[in-house]
Amino acid sequence: MKKILLIPDSFKGTMSSAEICAIMERAILKFEPDARVISIPVADGGEGSVDAFLTALGGEKIKTTVQGPFEQPVEGFFGIINETGAKTGVVEMAAAAGLPLALPRLNPLQATTYGAGELIKAALDAGCTKLIIGLGGSATNDGGCGAAAALGVRFFDKNGAAFVPVGGTLKDIARIDVSGRDARLETAELITMCDIDNPLYGENGAAFVFAPQKGADTQAVQFLDDGLKALAGTVRACLGLDKAAMPGAGAAGGMGYGMNVFLGSTLKMGIETVLDTVKFDELLAGADCVFSGEGKIDTQSLRGKVVIGIARRTKKAGVPLIAVVGDIGDGIEAAYDSGVSAIFSINRVAVDFSKAKARAKTDMALTMENIMRFKRLFGG
Amino acid sequence: MKKILLIPDSFKGTMSSAEICAIMERAILKFEPDARVISIPVADGGEGSVDAFLTALGGEKIKTTVQGPFEQPVEGFFGIINETGAKTGVVEMAAAAGLPLALPRLNPLQATTYGAGELIKAALDAGCTKLIIGLGGSATNDGGCGAAAALGVRFFDKNGAAFVPVGGTLKDIARIDVSGRDARLETAELITMCDIDNPLYGENGAAFVFAPQKGADTQAVQFLDDGLKALAGTVRACLGLDKAAMPGAGAAGGMGYGMNVFLGSTLKMGIETVLDTVKFDELLAGADCVFSGEGKIDTQSLRGKVVIGIARRTKKAGVPLIAVVGDIGDGIEAAYDSGVSAIFSINRVAVDFSKAKARAKTDMALTMENIMRFKRLFGG
Repeated sequence: MKKILLIPDSFKGTMSSAEICAIMERAILKFEPDARVISIPVADGGEGSVDAFLTALGGEKIKTTVQGPFEQPVEGFFGIINETGAKTGVVEMAAAAGLPLALPRLNPLQATTYGAGELIKAALDAGCTKLIIGLGGSATNDGGCGAAAALGVRFFDKNGAAFVPVGGTLKDIARIDVSGRDARLETAELITMCDIDNPLYGENGAAFVFAPQKGADTQAVQFLDDGLKALAGTVRACLGLDKAAMPGAGAAGGMGYGMNVFLGSTLKMGIETVLDTVKFDELLAGADCVFSGEGKIDTQSLRGKVVIGIARRTKKAGVPLIAVVGDIGDGIEAAYDSGVSAIFSINRVAVDFSKAKARAKTDMALTMENIMRFKRLFGG
Repeated sequence: MKKILLIPDSFKGTMSSAEICAIMERAILKFEPDARVISIPVADGGEGSVDAFLTALGGEKIKTTVQGPFEQPVEGFFGIINETGAKTGVVEMAAAAGLPLALPRLNPLQATTYGAGELIKAALDAGCTKLIIGLGGSATNDGGCGAAAALGVRFFDKNGAAFVPVGGTLKDIARIDVSGRDARLETAELITMCDIDNPLYGENGAAFVFAPQKGADTQAVQFLDDGLKALAGTVRACLGLDKAAMPGAGAAGGMGYGMNVFLGSTLKMGIETVLDTVKFDELLAGADCVFSGEGKIDTQSLRGKVVIGIARRTKKAGVPLIAVVGDIGDGIEAAYDSGVSAIFSINRVAVDFSKAKARAKTDMALTMENIMRFKRLFGG
């Protein structure tokens, strides 16, 4: 019985990873009805990451009311995945502090990640000793202070008054005290998924690069950047940690930074987190081939994106990897060297992206159908 | 040793069939250096048809001076292909009466196919007993009278004066005498390649559909159509032949009609002519697979175009046929039933045709590379 693994990234704004898995699986089973198809939708940390892990590994989705971006109660959730070994929880910060929850009032000066911290706490309460925290799609710019506060980290102003800092009040932090931090964090393993390598502040930092899409005008962006810089100074002074330049520190309004300095989490590329969590190397044993894909494969993809992350593993295992993508950029020969066996584009008519997008699902289906038709010709 | 056949149509205005064969062959030999690759560029009857046959079968190109569209001397040519059996000549009428030869002065009222008849005569003089005549790309609308005249058919006006009719004087023909026709035509086999099914005259006829692109205005189109209709009447009266409605009669300004009624040629689909001439069914024996392609495969393709014509043969022989095309239209499932094993589009980025066209060659190369990469994965 053939074993085929499906592990595509989403095509941003076009198809989710789970949708692509479903289309691929249908085409495969049409031509190889006896194949064992294993779908691993790739979580990128943003909205849908919990569902992606639960689809790939099975498990339970647990709902709980937490604070939203503006402290309003929202129904958040986290996942507990079926895994042998440590009980593992999956939290997506967007479930408590995502942009859709902040609409129509976007304001990164005031939005908080407190609810994301509450979700982490709820997962610890549920007995999880390992936690995967997805960053992405945030409405916030609080450097993760809100989440830290929900887990017992205390922030004081110059008058010694405790408060929960938000983007607009990061400069007011005079002292940070981690002594009251949730004790379970000392032993729990926290992995924060993070697909960007921006630093905390500066021209490539969280505020300048991402705050405009969260509703900040030019003046607010500068104010937020100043706040993140001040936070880094206070952390350095109080905790002796100098992590503002760490790749990923700027993720989710600086929450990448906060997860590390306040909660001791490691930051890890999303695809590596997924591959490790699903025990991809074990799944590869005896696999006939792997199908992956992403919206565009190009020279950018060659540093750290999904298909190439997978290729490193399939190459080592000697399992063919077929990438089914939106666009194939120029100069992708290096992808072959990295372990991608063959690349097919789903584009089937010469139309621009606005039109191609609308037909992506049928075009993906047709492309997979023809790949499978071709495969069976040669005994594959 | 693997045997792979390449028999793509041209991608109109983008790549010639021979160019596509070269790109395909390069990709195949990169991955299967020992393969025996047989390239069969498809002639469609128009410009380049002689070269296509010579490339596919080998042979000799013979130049000879004949009359151009306006009786000016032009250097024409025909081919003699290497074939066991009958000595076979290939003539493309465009070599004597093509649009480029008429530029900048386009005038289908005056242009003649006389030179095309001279090329046929030259091929007979060279000893050919079988002739393939390609129609297409003509500047003429003379119903093939010029070509017939060059081969001894005589046309008389009401005063009994012999003349060579052109588009503007078809109505003046009062009598036709075929008794002086070149005697070698009685035994020679003439096959006229013809990919359109238009009748001689009427709204779907040669004048209405094709004369505007040859320089005829509305008034001239009507005049030419009247002329073709009159010709059909005179032929009926003098020769007892009623062939104006025959599919292909309207090809090359009615030369399809003239080749049949004056010279006794059969009309045949271009792809069928090519397949028969190259003895495609024999080549299929022991072939690993066949690659074909065309600019767009769609429901139109399913009646008589290149890929489907080939599919009928490959299906019977049980040889896989892979189509590598520009666009894949909707509803092409019937192509699979007809014998196309798998279809791949060369589109690799979502851009409109004006942009896609400019990159067609590199995109064809990349698509073939990935098809071959995929093929070798599964022992193909």
